[in-house]
Amino acid sequence: MSALESDLPLTRESVLEAHERIKPHIHLTPALTSRTLDRLASTSRSADVDGIKNARGVTGDGAARPVVRMVFKCENLQRGGAFKIRGATHAISRLTPAQSSKGVITHSSGNHAQALAIAAAAASIPCTVIMPSISTPSKIAATQSYGASVVFSGSTAPEREAAVREEQARTGATLIPPYDHPFILLGQGTVALELIEQANAAGRPLDAIVAPCGGGGLLSGIATACRGTGVRVFGAEPRKDGANDCQRGLKAGARIDSVKTLTIADGLRTPTGAVTYGVIEESVAGVFSVTEWEILMAVRLVVERMKVLVEPSAVVGLAVVLFDEGFRRLVQREAGEGGWNVGVVFSGGNTTLEALAGLLVREGEFTNEQEQLLRE
Amino acid sequence: MSALESDLPLTRESVLEAHERIKPHIHLTPALTSRTLDRLASTSRSADVDGIKNARGVTGDGAARPVVRMVFKCENLQRGGAFKIRGATHAISRLTPAQSSKGVITHSSGNHAQALAIAAAAASIPCTVIMPSISTPSKIAATQSYGASVVFSGSTAPEREAAVREEQARTGATLIPPYDHPFILLGQGTVALELIEQANAAGRPLDAIVAPCGGGGLLSGIATACRGTGVRVFGAEPRKDGANDCQRGLKAGARIDSVKTLTIADGLRTPTGAVTYGVIEESVAGVFSVTEWEILMAVRLVVERMKVLVEPSAVVGLAVVLFDEGFRRLVQREAGEGGWNVGVVFSGGNTTLEALAGLLVREGEFTNEQEQLLRE
Repeated sequence: MSALESDLPLTRESVLEAHERIKPHIHLTPALTSRTLDRLASTSRSADVDGIKNARGVTGDGAARPVVRMVFKCENLQRGGAFKIRGATHAISRLTPAQSSKGVITHSSGNHAQALAIAAAAASIPCTVIMPSISTPSKIAATQSYGASVVFSGSTAPEREAAVREEQARTGATLIPPYDHPFILLGQGTVALELIEQANAAGRPLDAIVAPCGGGGLLSGIATACRGTGVRVFGAEPRKDGANDCQRGLKAGARIDSVKTLTIADGLRTPTGAVTYGVIEESVAGVFSVTEWEILMAVRLVVERMKVLVEPSAVVGLAVVLFDEGFRRLVQREAGEGGWNVGVVFSGGNTTLEALAGLLVREGEFTNEQEQLLRE
Repeated sequence: MSALESDLPLTRESVLEAHERIKPHIHLTPALTSRTLDRLASTSRSADVDGIKNARGVTGDGAARPVVRMVFKCENLQRGGAFKIRGATHAISRLTPAQSSKGVITHSSGNHAQALAIAAAAASIPCTVIMPSISTPSKIAATQSYGASVVFSGSTAPEREAAVREEQARTGATLIPPYDHPFILLGQGTVALELIEQANAAGRPLDAIVAPCGGGGLLSGIATACRGTGVRVFGAEPRKDGANDCQRGLKAGARIDSVKTLTIADGLRTPTGAVTYGVIEESVAGVFSVTEWEILMAVRLVVERMKVLVEPSAVVGLAVVLFDEGFRRLVQREAGEGGWNVGVVFSGGNTTLEALAGLLVREGEFTNEQEQLLRE
């Protein structure tokens, strides 16, 4: 068994260094723009536009009317379908030769496991993924298709952790955590380096970046990458069942370390980690949260208007820009008539046509939730 | 009333000239690659891979096993959601001042109408779209939202054409045809200029391009753009109900000018035009056709693996590369072990989540059709 130790400072320079290491192994994902979405974001009358009805609960003269030009960083088009390959590849590049020879292990069943499998295969390092034996066959097959060994465990966290320890005792594999580690967050932060450069090339030098926040690896990495650049960084969370743990923690002045939520943004159900929360507290300009209905509307807009597939977790940043009056008032106040260029990170696209169709069936249900929230 | 006359030669130089004219008004759409799809295209055992079952009806040692590296040109991410903006913008740039002042008109109810509306608005030229009064309200609203005047007609072709003539008599507007005109095909051909350059930049200089063929504007334009470059151009059509009119016409030695099909690739239900067919006959290396099931499998792969939204018409080229044994044997024979770099054009992405979900419901039905075809 071997610990993944880091003495890297959490600085922009460390993110730049991580980028050099991982560049050959990742896609430079496209940065897209959309006149339709800019128009939607820059009106106070979303109720009147494109069927977006009463999403904000505020329309007309009372509502904020910021000027927003967005640049969308499409990590849904990244290798493995999500930004996770960045952190995983970076962590693997930092292993000692002794660690490399014994392989890596994880017990995430989501995007991180697939990313680690891909990154390990690229480095010719053995990779083991602990998965609950009740996992869907397609998920198991996908992880195996990337070359990882799948070891089954019970489905509770203690059972999975025990299985990891058992496997580590046997093989000496190094555990690569999904988000709460300097190597991981520095790797994820490389998204911001590319986005800033691509926005400049598109004639939209960024004033701000909005990114999803689950465990906080992506958000804290971006905040680290943006230090000293003048680009403000904002986080976005789902609100359902208190999934906005980071936002609530910042308000209360203490990290919330446990969350139980069934938000459709299933990649954001985890609470922020200790390391990531520290960075976010220090360097993030604000965290906002959105309803299930707002997330669904954002998915529909991105899929149907921008023509790229996104998982619900990927669009909470866009939902904040479109629907959160607090964020929108802030932009209007700080940006004035010139407006802001806002980088919006689409974090992943790992979903199926069936799953999206299933969300549409629930649209009415989401509308009710939305209305209830507005009454509260 | 005013005719759209062209004295432009159908040469690569004319395509280059068209590109200079339209560049400021269109997106340089991304060119993507996918290891998963390359792997699928480069195996003879598609039956074993990723749930693609018996698509070719040929597996194992008898099947072709070409080496294919693809570069996907994402015109589904183009302004208006399809390549059509290229031809429309080019045609508008060629209007005389007198024509411009009187505006443009069309009776396409598909991607061409929206593209023309966008292109006309950009040039501050009035645009009228004749639409059947039974059109879906969302389609009418979308066309109007781009600034076009919608005039209603009956739903048969003669009724629509009569409405166009009536409107032209009143306004003097110039009819911009959807595909069968030099200005249009030269505009559509600009896709190939970008794709060739992007493939070079990606280290995959193209051996061939495969593009969908409906009216033939896109395919004939690409063939024109590739003249003298050494890049072979292939066409792809749906086969259902004889929708492969171009393939059948080439075989019989005479253009087929009427088709009645209900293929899910609804953008490809039109027969090739007289001008476009002439170019295709002269400059296209081959036209292949695919089943409904193969189209659906290609949609699913692109949406779920590449994470971009495509309409069924957009993926017939990919379906040919993956599933057509004739094409695959040709590649294996001509390319040998080194393989080919193949540019695949995704022509558009104008569909909805509901429509895609509806296709999935029909998957079983398509499988039956597929099996029947294989027995024939």
